[in-house]
Amino acid sequence: MRDIIYFGEKIYFEGYSAVGGFEEGRGTIGEKFDFISEDDLFGMKSFERAESEMCRIAMNIALKKCNITNDELSVLVAGDLQNQCVGSTSGLFSFGVPYLGLYGACSTLTESLGVCASIMNVGASYKRGAVVTSSHNCTSERQFRNPLEYGGQRAPSTQWTATAAGAFILEKREANEKDDAPFISAFMPGRVIDGYTKDAANMGGAMALSSFDTMSRFFSPESGERVEDYDLILTGDLGKIGSDILSELLVEKLGKIGEKIKERHNDAGLILYDREKQDVHAGGSGCGCSASVMGADILKKVKRGEIKKMLLMSTGALMNSTSVLQGEHIFGITPCIKIESSVL
Amino acid sequence: MRDIIYFGEKIYFEGYSAVGGFEEGRGTIGEKFDFISEDDLFGMKSFERAESEMCRIAMNIALKKCNITNDELSVLVAGDLQNQCVGSTSGLFSFGVPYLGLYGACSTLTESLGVCASIMNVGASYKRGAVVTSSHNCTSERQFRNPLEYGGQRAPSTQWTATAAGAFILEKREANEKDDAPFISAFMPGRVIDGYTKDAANMGGAMALSSFDTMSRFFSPESGERVEDYDLILTGDLGKIGSDILSELLVEKLGKIGEKIKERHNDAGLILYDREKQDVHAGGSGCGCSASVMGADILKKVKRGEIKKMLLMSTGALMNSTSVLQGEHIFGITPCIKIESSVL
Repeated sequence: MRDIIYFGEKIYFEGYSAVGGFEEGRGTIGEKFDFISEDDLFGMKSFERAESEMCRIAMNIALKKCNITNDELSVLVAGDLQNQCVGSTSGLFSFGVPYLGLYGACSTLTESLGVCASIMNVGASYKRGAVVTSSHNCTSERQFRNPLEYGGQRAPSTQWTATAAGAFILEKREANEKDDAPFISAFMPGRVIDGYTKDAANMGGAMALSSFDTMSRFFSPESGERVEDYDLILTGDLGKIGSDILSELLVEKLGKIGEKIKERHNDAGLILYDREKQDVHAGGSGCGCSASVMGADILKKVKRGEIKKMLLMSTGALMNSTSVLQGEHIFGITPCIKIESSVL
Repeated sequence: MRDIIYFGEKIYFEGYSAVGGFEEGRGTIGEKFDFISEDDLFGMKSFERAESEMCRIAMNIALKKCNITNDELSVLVAGDLQNQCVGSTSGLFSFGVPYLGLYGACSTLTESLGVCASIMNVGASYKRGAVVTSSHNCTSERQFRNPLEYGGQRAPSTQWTATAAGAFILEKREANEKDDAPFISAFMPGRVIDGYTKDAANMGGAMALSSFDTMSRFFSPESGERVEDYDLILTGDLGKIGSDILSELLVEKLGKIGEKIKERHNDAGLILYDREKQDVHAGGSGCGCSASVMGADILKKVKRGEIKKMLLMSTGALMNSTSVLQGEHIFGITPCIKIESSVL
């Protein structure tokens, strides 16, 4: 299969963190976060600064967890939803680490992990790297939709942009005897797929086709990959509507393989919040959603061996407020990485 | 030197193109462009669509030049200045190539070439990739500053965002006997450097420190790299003001090595337009500036062997219209790739 990159050197998750705001703290996995801010300003004077501060806090916690300093990092890959990704750059510049800025909307986490693992595989001296992605509900609402003060009613199909950041310290090394660190073993970039919708209030719907495209490519007959080998196929963030569309597509188009994918599928946007108690409509979204779900919850399960092999497929909706007003289609993209447990 | 990635496999520029608008056509290297549109709409109904159309045209020309189809590409790396990089995604989705979206402001070309070459080095089956970057004066003016209709007077320190796109088809292969294709042999990501300015009308000034940082790192005593080995060190786009600041820094801080860098330094923002005849103030800028200067002019000189070894260091100013209004600093970033001639 020409599309999947299998890494010669394993890239281990040595440390990771999840930072969130009030809603995230009272969500389903709120207790597993490393840091929750009771308000969404994180002590800053603007929501934009707050997002940067989240990135900085997440990075510091992740560094501390594996007991290394920023000087030991060869590269930092990051991105967020703010125009020109300023949330990441202004939050992370003080670490002084060589930097690659990426944009993949809510898919940025998977794209960043894949690119970082690739760069570390090719850079002989690149032993350690970091990935940070974030989103902030209040910066996103006023940038993509309306200022919060406007108090507009949200459509039932909308998702709740997570106020959250995740940081991940990656290390290229040999396995050791008592290893329990999860590692990245493969990466496959996603294709830009027309979502055939202009409705900015239905991101999950716009991204469903693209997640289906990536699953079809990854499990194509030529790839040699078998669904049975995976315990979890995690998208983020299709939410309820996108997940339902994906499920239908899988069964209708891929038959038995589709059924098996469906059985193993979950979505970060459906994990982060308790949709019965929290007013998040179709679920969570944002670069910080899959990042915090991975950092707070999923990677710990892989570390414990509860999940042996998984695919992370964060999904991104590619649009901006101008393109929507101009009546352009919304595109989706779904990169994919393979994560394995060191615990057999 | 831990920072420079030297590629095991050479990544050749097999085909490349430059597409531009009216001002670019009457600029210093206008005749060398592959396609010039007499108006800046490229037959589209909006400037945003026009930018996407430029990307599509540039990609098609580059593919045609090396006689391959989009199906033969394993990966496409792209970015632009529009919010959420929609110029690239909507212009390039129809090629159906696995896609990595990057954001590095005007540095996006160098970052994209470096990431694409890295991915091709690590992906065993990744034989061919493509890089496309673009900018459009009219989409940028209204997004970052004022709508064109407002007719605001531009400060003398401003630069002119190029209406241009460049596309580059990269190939991983052995050298052949009659080879004359330029190739990428190394990549070094840039660091995010505080430009110590809040003036969005002086991008060159905001990026000068970051270009100096990258040069200092690349030619540090531990790196083993010698300035004398290079014929050209091309930044893009510091313009007149940024280049002047860089020159002073080089001589003051790096002494003799700085003098040698200064002798070999040129800037894409000073090459694209004729500043005496065109009203571009401090020079050109935008992701399309260094892309079109490379695609229309510089790579042809490397192909002919007039330039044996060069460094491409596109420079990016990291800010958005909100961060400027909130009084935040503007950051700069300068990634670097090493390009060599096959002609000895």
